[in-house]
Amino acid sequence: MTTTLQDCRARDAQDPLRALRDRFALPPGVIYLDGNSLGVAPKAAAARVADVVNREWATDLIQSWNTASWFDLPQRLGNQLAPLIGAGPNEVVCTDTTSINLYKVLSAALNIAREDSPTRKRVVSERSNFPTDLYIAEGLCKERGLELVLVEPEEIAAALTSDVAVLMLTHVNYRTGAMHDMAAVTAAAHAAGILTVWDLAHSAGAVPVDLNGAGADFSIGCGYKYLNGGPGAPAFVWVHPRHADRFWQPLSGWWGHAAPFAFTPDYQPAPGITRYLCGTQPIISLSALQCGLDVFTAAQSLGGMAALRAKSLALTDLFIALVEERCAGHGLGLATPRDHAQRGSQVCLTRDEGAGVNGQGSGAYAIVQALIARGVIGDFRKGDGGTGRHNDILRFGFTPLYLGFEDVWNAVEHLRQVLESGEWQKAEFNQTHAVT
Amino acid sequence: MTTTLQDCRARDAQDPLRALRDRFALPPGVIYLDGNSLGVAPKAAAARVADVVNREWATDLIQSWNTASWFDLPQRLGNQLAPLIGAGPNEVVCTDTTSINLYKVLSAALNIAREDSPTRKRVVSERSNFPTDLYIAEGLCKERGLELVLVEPEEIAAALTSDVAVLMLTHVNYRTGAMHDMAAVTAAAHAAGILTVWDLAHSAGAVPVDLNGAGADFSIGCGYKYLNGGPGAPAFVWVHPRHADRFWQPLSGWWGHAAPFAFTPDYQPAPGITRYLCGTQPIISLSALQCGLDVFTAAQSLGGMAALRAKSLALTDLFIALVEERCAGHGLGLATPRDHAQRGSQVCLTRDEGAGVNGQGSGAYAIVQALIARGVIGDFRKGDGGTGRHNDILRFGFTPLYLGFEDVWNAVEHLRQVLESGEWQKAEFNQTHAVT
Repeated sequence: MTTTLQDCRARDAQDPLRALRDRFALPPGVIYLDGNSLGVAPKAAAARVADVVNREWATDLIQSWNTASWFDLPQRLGNQLAPLIGAGPNEVVCTDTTSINLYKVLSAALNIAREDSPTRKRVVSERSNFPTDLYIAEGLCKERGLELVLVEPEEIAAALTSDVAVLMLTHVNYRTGAMHDMAAVTAAAHAAGILTVWDLAHSAGAVPVDLNGAGADFSIGCGYKYLNGGPGAPAFVWVHPRHADRFWQPLSGWWGHAAPFAFTPDYQPAPGITRYLCGTQPIISLSALQCGLDVFTAAQSLGGMAALRAKSLALTDLFIALVEERCAGHGLGLATPRDHAQRGSQVCLTRDEGAGVNGQGSGAYAIVQALIARGVIGDFRKGDGGTGRHNDILRFGFTPLYLGFEDVWNAVEHLRQVLESGEWQKAEFNQTHAVT
Repeated sequence: MTTTLQDCRARDAQDPLRALRDRFALPPGVIYLDGNSLGVAPKAAAARVADVVNREWATDLIQSWNTASWFDLPQRLGNQLAPLIGAGPNEVVCTDTTSINLYKVLSAALNIAREDSPTRKRVVSERSNFPTDLYIAEGLCKERGLELVLVEPEEIAAALTSDVAVLMLTHVNYRTGAMHDMAAVTAAAHAAGILTVWDLAHSAGAVPVDLNGAGADFSIGCGYKYLNGGPGAPAFVWVHPRHADRFWQPLSGWWGHAAPFAFTPDYQPAPGITRYLCGTQPIISLSALQCGLDVFTAAQSLGGMAALRAKSLALTDLFIALVEERCAGHGLGLATPRDHAQRGSQVCLTRDEGAGVNGQGSGAYAIVQALIARGVIGDFRKGDGGTGRHNDILRFGFTPLYLGFEDVWNAVEHLRQVLESGEWQKAEFNQTHAVT
């Protein structure tokens, strides 16, 4: 039996998470399927940021370091985030950027792994990991005379050899939405004497994560995607308590000092995760992130991440089913796993190479542009031109905090119309320019 | 002839920079002498930040990467800042934190210096440099098997030996306000084959700086002090064009990539200063920094940094003269040089050890607290308890953008009353707690 628009409306009416949608400033006329790239603004953010500027900064000035507790904001936000990723209290800080936090934890992981086993000289990662992760690893390996080994997902198990120090993976792949089994992969790595670094950029706030349950070693993640912390919001970093005090990470700035206001000339790292802080943090942006986290705190009483996960899977299941039912015959394929256990909170479609205008390319970019013109915002990730294993991708993120089933219906209906009318073939949608 | 309150008012009335004061949200009843720690909010900041949240983020969402040019904001702000520090176009980016930027440039400087002269194994700095600079240098030296050598200011010349790779100095000392002669020190370092790294945390926007004129090699600085960019505003980094393309700095994230949106797995550094970017920047905080820079752009037509410097020296001269004239006999000394060529934009007073309550300590902390209670905001920096060369410091920053001569008069009058009445001896001002 096929799903109808009325079915979708009925499901929205019964959705116990529906009230959370009112906490977001959704632009009218937009179906936003790009929360995996930049989350929607919580309505509370405008007032919070105004208060930081007008009261904390402009009025209270320097005294806000004490009265507004600016100095421990990274720890407070980290504690608020911790339950979403299976971390304990005082195990997470929100700070800096994903790339910089990766540099910290990968450095520490390499120090630990190589002190224990100096012959381990490899870092293993996925070839389709988010590029900035690979760039940071490439730089660190080059600096230390180590080797970065990139493999396909199905080659990971075989790559966990006795010369590997660290396995560095992104939990949910940014291009395909495929999710690793964190517990199983971590166990396999540990069995081979290898430490794990997990990037949760597309996981935190999107799928339940249990870092301590999986026995993971190090983790980082992004504040501006599913956590809805605002453009370029500070990122986060978690280190398992068994490792946290063992080394100081190389970005040893004063915010990570045991006594930052003693102004001593020598560095004494603070105990625990605090030593993963470095310099003074951008307080206005960090305060906006809190508004994103507040929504998850509010979601606790509605079932928390388990309820969000159930809805996310229902939304992505529905999207896949409707696309296959209503957009058949247009060269679309599915890059995201059908198996729930392997799926993040996004659906990525491929399109046949040669299906573009005049047989050039896939047309995927133009289809995404045509959808954006209709107010359905997804994004495009380029493939390798049909020469290898990666097709062009039409990427759609599903954030259960603010998306409903009717949104999914309407998004697919727009996609169907764009494909069937051929409007994606218009020249205006086929001009490639700066994309994000 | 002594200066009177009427004289001060007359000087304010004739001050060609007076109109700039109206651009700042000065709290009523406050004389703010802590702009060297956290600058006052430009009035434009509240509206700018609201626009970033409500329009760029909440309404335009992901499209703001293109429509609001988020991606090149670090370069645009860098170009706006460049004239303040004697840098050319496309030589500066505003990004990350001072500590992290120092890690980048010190790494690059060491790579260059040691590739040219592998026997150079020392980094020289000042013992009273801002601690986070020393922590970063300590970490890098430890990581690379190098030695960090800390000396007093008068020992720097003798320390520039043939085994030194890099001289790392803060241009204006945070504790004393003493300023180095950047051109002379750089020339001496270069004559000894040593590269220079200059921290402009207390210089940018406070004193005229000419990095290219001095032939400096690397520089970093702070966005939230004299640049008035907001709490924890992103910092900046400059690299002389002769060095910029020679190495990639170790924090090799995607914002420093030659083609960030190509998403290639290997790192290709962008040409020039752009390779000193790393991860996605906190756009809201970065946008607030622009409001601080806009005031300096407006100041150009009023004489720019030369006029600001003239006023700054007039303000600090007046403060020193009035304190010596009206607060004599209370154990105060002057830590800041009288020589204009050696003075930044702050005045630091010492107080005799043993002049505190019941002969304990200096009482400097309590005096600062008593002044704050009267609305005169300076800050306190602890000395070494009379055992060495550093006394406790009462620190007062003078920002010519928003301070006037009457403010100086009133601040000294409050200081006189605090000292003469003995109100600083009250218990409430003598309880040490978290200070910034």
